[in-house]
Amino acid sequence: MRVLGIDPGSRFMGYGVVEERRGRLVHVGHGVIKVDPDAALELRLKELHDALLTALRLYKPQAVAVEGVFTFRNARSALILGHARGVALLAAAQVGLTVHEYPPARVKRAVGAGGAADKDAVGRMVCTFLGLEEVERADASDALAVALCHLNHGRAAVPVAMGKVSKSRRKSAQSQLTDRLTPAYRRPEAG
Amino acid sequence: MRVLGIDPGSRFMGYGVVEERRGRLVHVGHGVIKVDPDAALELRLKELHDALLTALRLYKPQAVAVEGVFTFRNARSALILGHARGVALLAAAQVGLTVHEYPPARVKRAVGAGGAADKDAVGRMVCTFLGLEEVERADASDALAVALCHLNHGRAAVPVAMGKVSKSRRKSAQSQLTDRLTPAYRRPEAG
Repeated sequence: MRVLGIDPGSRFMGYGVVEERRGRLVHVGHGVIKVDPDAALELRLKELHDALLTALRLYKPQAVAVEGVFTFRNARSALILGHARGVALLAAAQVGLTVHEYPPARVKRAVGAGGAADKDAVGRMVCTFLGLEEVERADASDALAVALCHLNHGRAAVPVAMGKVSKSRRKSAQSQLTDRLTPAYRRPEAG
Repeated sequence: MRVLGIDPGSRFMGYGVVEERRGRLVHVGHGVIKVDPDAALELRLKELHDALLTALRLYKPQAVAVEGVFTFRNARSALILGHARGVALLAAAQVGLTVHEYPPARVKRAVGAGGAADKDAVGRMVCTFLGLEEVERADASDALAVALCHLNHGRAAVPVAMGKVSKSRRKSAQSQLTDRLTPAYRRPEAG
């Protein structure tokens, strides 16, 4: 079972892919799609959509997971987030996948963080779970967290057997991430 | 110059096509895309997106116009509207069109209605402008209004020369609309 988690945003959209292999949760890949904040809204949405479709076609997940939105800074930011979230959900439907939504508190619990944990704490727990040294941006670690949450869904939340990741593999995962953080989206390589 | 106006919504998405022909504003077509409210959100978005892309490819407008959103019932409804609006703007970008956004008050003025005019009043003014007997749903008349607004933009707002529409043509436009209001979206015929 392979799951692609998405952390949608209108400027940065994180995604993270986790696979369950014989009861182990293994990190497959992650990245952040960054769009030009000065581009017209419709072009930014097209960029997000194109890049996410590329990731979905590359990683071929069996499901997509995303955090539900329950708290809002204000209505204007909710509208803008909705635009990005809409094209992300559309991309999932276009490759025939169901989107599973989880409340933020459950996503935090799924990685062993408390309900009040901040993004940094979630990021550290995701790294511990998946044997990564670091995930540079919270958009990507949040996406990995919601993918982990989906794989935990319906069974005892903790402990989850961690995938064994060699030190060299960890480094390689990290350097791939750095590549993907350049302003222009790069095609990720499947892990 | 042919413009497709969109009135996005997560359950009903209106569109309306108006063309300027030698200084006259002529009604080309309009419709309402209706989606199953019980379907999963990602499937509803896919339905809206597919149908709108079909309309864009059929009517081949040179521009897309949409109302800006400045007032919100609440943040939750802004998020939901954002999803539908996001996939609508995406569809425009995917066929290479720029999206022009107009404040609601300017859209109302463009059809000769006051700033406090309700949807019914806008609908009646749109019919007067375009020589239509009736536009059955406000989603479609609002979409026609924003298309008219784009064509008025940058020149004296009123009076606009109306397209002459024969009585038989009016009836045919009306019956096409009725066809398009069935739950399943039907491919519209170019006017």
